Amino acid sequence: MRAVVIPRFGGPEVLELRDLPRPEPGADQVLVRVRATALNRADALQRAGRYPAPAGAAAAVPGLEFAGEVERLGPGVRRWREGDRVFGIVGGGAHAEYVVAHERAVAPVPALLDWHEAAAVPEAFITAHDALVSQAALRPGELVLVHAAGSGVGLAAIQLARALGATPYGTARSPWKLERAREHGMADGFAPPADMAGMRERVMAWTGGRGVDVVLDLVGGPYVEASAHVLALKGRMMLVGAVAGGEVRLPLGRVMSQRLTVRGTVLRSRPIEERILATAAFEREVLPWLARGALRPAIDARFPLADVAAAHARLESNESFGKIVLDLGV
Amino acid sequence: MRAVVIPRFGGPEVLELRDLPRPEPGADQVLVRVRATALNRADALQRAGRYPAPAGAAAAVPGLEFAGEVERLGPGVRRWREGDRVFGIVGGGAHAEYVVAHERAVAPVPALLDWHEAAAVPEAFITAHDALVSQAALRPGELVLVHAAGSGVGLAAIQLARALGATPYGTARSPWKLERAREHGMADGFAPPADMAGMRERVMAWTGGRGVDVVLDLVGGPYVEASAHVLALKGRMMLVGAVAGGEVRLPLGRVMSQRLTVRGTVLRSRPIEERILATAAFEREVLPWLARGALRPAIDARFPLADVAAAHARLESNESFGKIVLDLGV
Repeated sequence: MRAVVIPRFGGPEVLELRDLPRPEPGADQVLVRVRATALNRADALQRAGRYPAPAGAAAAVPGLEFAGEVERLGPGVRRWREGDRVFGIVGGGAHAEYVVAHERAVAPVPALLDWHEAAAVPEAFITAHDALVSQAALRPGELVLVHAAGSGVGLAAIQLARALGATPYGTARSPWKLERAREHGMADGFAPPADMAGMRERVMAWTGGRGVDVVLDLVGGPYVEASAHVLALKGRMMLVGAVAGGEVRLPLGRVMSQRLTVRGTVLRSRPIEERILATAAFEREVLPWLARGALRPAIDARFPLADVAAAHARLESNESFGKIVLDLGV
Repeated sequence: MRAVVIPRFGGPEVLELRDLPRPEPGADQVLVRVRATALNRADALQRAGRYPAPAGAAAAVPGLEFAGEVERLGPGVRRWREGDRVFGIVGGGAHAEYVVAHERAVAPVPALLDWHEAAAVPEAFITAHDALVSQAALRPGELVLVHAAGSGVGLAAIQLARALGATPYGTARSPWKLERAREHGMADGFAPPADMAGMRERVMAWTGGRGVDVVLDLVGGPYVEASAHVLALKGRMMLVGAVAGGEVRLPLGRVMSQRLTVRGTVLRSRPIEERILATAAFEREVLPWLARGALRPAIDARFPLADVAAAHARLESNESFGKIVLDLGV
């Protein structure tokens, strides 16, 4: 099979397309012929040598999500037949023509979605749903603030919050991203300066001085401290990214008096049992909305797999809005 | 009634004993003749002007816990009769001969406990139980690290962890406090230097490199960052104090990769409904152990109410081990 390989760490130019042996599906696994896949920050971090693949993942092949057809069944597989359209998340190895996945860690692709749309769904919607719903227990009527509103996960979270009867707000460094995020249901947005000045005033104006119930933070750095200052009593802060830095401060007095919960979460390193649970929750609670078009993945751009370096450069330009998809000759 | 009053903010010397009108029990409240009460950090902070009493609490009268006899029933009280021995927590006003409390925010004092022992129970054991069990969901077999192992809450947490089948470790700045905490069930202890050097190595040695499942932190400051480095996967850090400072750092990468939960919690400012729930959980899950002597409050010293200034000075000396009790002429 043809796959993207990282022969040495560095910029996008180190990425190579190579022919590798096709992986074999083990017990309870399916071999999927990948039709489209998508990029995540983790792919760029892995390429730069700053985010090693978890144990058991195809170490040199990046790619955390895929959409494609079941090509072959491993021993014991009961849920799928050859030719079924599936999508899902893996610990690595999805930027390739073939990938293997546990049969219960993939979900059926709704008929409404093209391959490239399907490829833009799994990581964004499973991450957003797991963080907002399964972990932060978002309730109807609550207020949500999403940092990096123009990212794939951010736009999925904004749509999910709306679908659940909550009200999503967002931040992005670029005002044009905020404008476009409104089209996905964001109630209002704020482009914070580097020192986060004005964020508290803005959020308190939106919420009548109450603050937000949930923060989904994909940025890290100064956003964490600023988020603690805009959370309402018993607010929950979900930490899903550290693009802006990993050394963060926390105002302890406010965390205690407001009884805040701050939780870090990653999908990638979870054991297969937990990824199956997250996928099952996504299939049960999110897929019906995707199947009838109530939720839609936001796609920034499409690149052929051979142009993966250009796709990485696009991701790292911070000019993207939504997901960057890699097509595999659909 | 005679009560401690804070006429102006300052050191222990500002405290005065004054005669005030006896409070009236409202609907669903009982008037309690206080036999003994105890000190908390919040009393000293309130005296110093750094921790205002929550709305509705007797603003100028400190005191968060009490043990005494039901003296009079407010309208609608069904749970108690005059003369019943009760103890509980209030938002303030307990350093006095009489205090009013909601009838369901007090619990019966086990026969085994003297008044001064009873007064040392509520805040320490309700706080420790609420944080470790109700919020951090401590399970048998888990490992716990308690910062400020020699404090009233710390010693309650150590005993509770043992009773629940968990293994408690602890830190204290004074090695002699660690020695005494072992007598209460602490498996091992560490006296960290100001920069926390050596804490991670020590905890990893205790736990075979695994880390602890729950941290109960009563100290704040550098303990928060250090705690993030000793928590196991999906570990929970409960923040209950900020004696060592309120500006804390958090290693975001570790919080995410270990999927840690950091939660601030205070009892004092909670609405009455939540204090009733916490008291009910304490009565259900902790009181049976206290009733048969399996859990015992740790008492550092007793002072007559008239010597409340000396009691505050003792608390702030950081030489106390366990609770400082105020007797009201038993």
